Amino acid sequence: MRWSDIGAEQCSVARALSVVGDRWTLLVLRDAFHGVRRFEDFQTSTKASRPVLTERLATLVEHEVLRRIRYQERPERYEYRLTEKGVGLYPVIVSLLAWGDRWMAGDEGPPLRLRHDCCGGTATPELACPDCGELIDPRDLSPVLREPGPAPHR
Amino acid sequence: MRWSDIGAEQCSVARALSVVGDRWTLLVLRDAFHGVRRFEDFQTSTKASRPVLTERLATLVEHEVLRRIRYQERPERYEYRLTEKGVGLYPVIVSLLAWGDRWMAGDEGPPLRLRHDCCGGTATPELACPDCGELIDPRDLSPVLREPGPAPHR
Repeated sequence: MRWSDIGAEQCSVARALSVVGDRWTLLVLRDAFHGVRRFEDFQTSTKASRPVLTERLATLVEHEVLRRIRYQERPERYEYRLTEKGVGLYPVIVSLLAWGDRWMAGDEGPPLRLRHDCCGGTATPELACPDCGELIDPRDLSPVLREPGPAPHR
Repeated sequence: MRWSDIGAEQCSVARALSVVGDRWTLLVLRDAFHGVRRFEDFQTSTKASRPVLTERLATLVEHEVLRRIRYQERPERYEYRLTEKGVGLYPVIVSLLAWGDRWMAGDEGPPLRLRHDCCGGTATPELACPDCGELIDPRDLSPVLREPGPAPHR
């Protein structure tokens, strides 16, 4: 199967990966959440080559994860900002961060922590059930196939 | 920068991506969380080529995300099971699923939902702060650099 076909797969994980299932793309998103907006700054931070970065940014703009906005007229210069769809990827990046902290930080410990401004806590965010509020244990989630009929409203 | 170098980067996201920042790898993990254990079943589900799948499984075993266990002696056959480190990637997969559901499900709606067995709810898990229990708004998280000194105990 080619990656260009996978967006049509009947699986939301596969569909998501057809847009963001690439290391450079995920590094670009990490930087976008850290406030990076300009091509040169993405390049410095990700260390991606120019053609790779150009292609990844174009894909993210095409899929409306980033918006390309002109911030200077002469010469024309553009920056890249997260859309609402892009902001929706925050849990993916935070989950990768949390896993890297937990399993790959080495003796020095995690390079940075996230502070929850609302309470001042620096515990790493975890998945919780919006219905009952409990933190999620993977063994307590069961897949339920969609029933035939009209699509649920979202 | 080459991907073999990125595991040493001072960033937990980059370190995590050095192991799992690949679409086939993430599809293999999706399947492992659905209970898939055998090479042929991973191949059927991911539609990865044999060499690609062999390489991705070997990398996941090398990084102790999956364990390779012999389940038959003659002929020798092996299956792959998630380790504790592997189970720790569940939030990454669930977050990709949630994003795919929200933004790429199309008119038919998401192909499957996750039910939280503890409460029966089918709301998609979201990130919450383990300290105060509130669901996380990305704008309420601030990065805090590690202070110089001994590593924090984890």
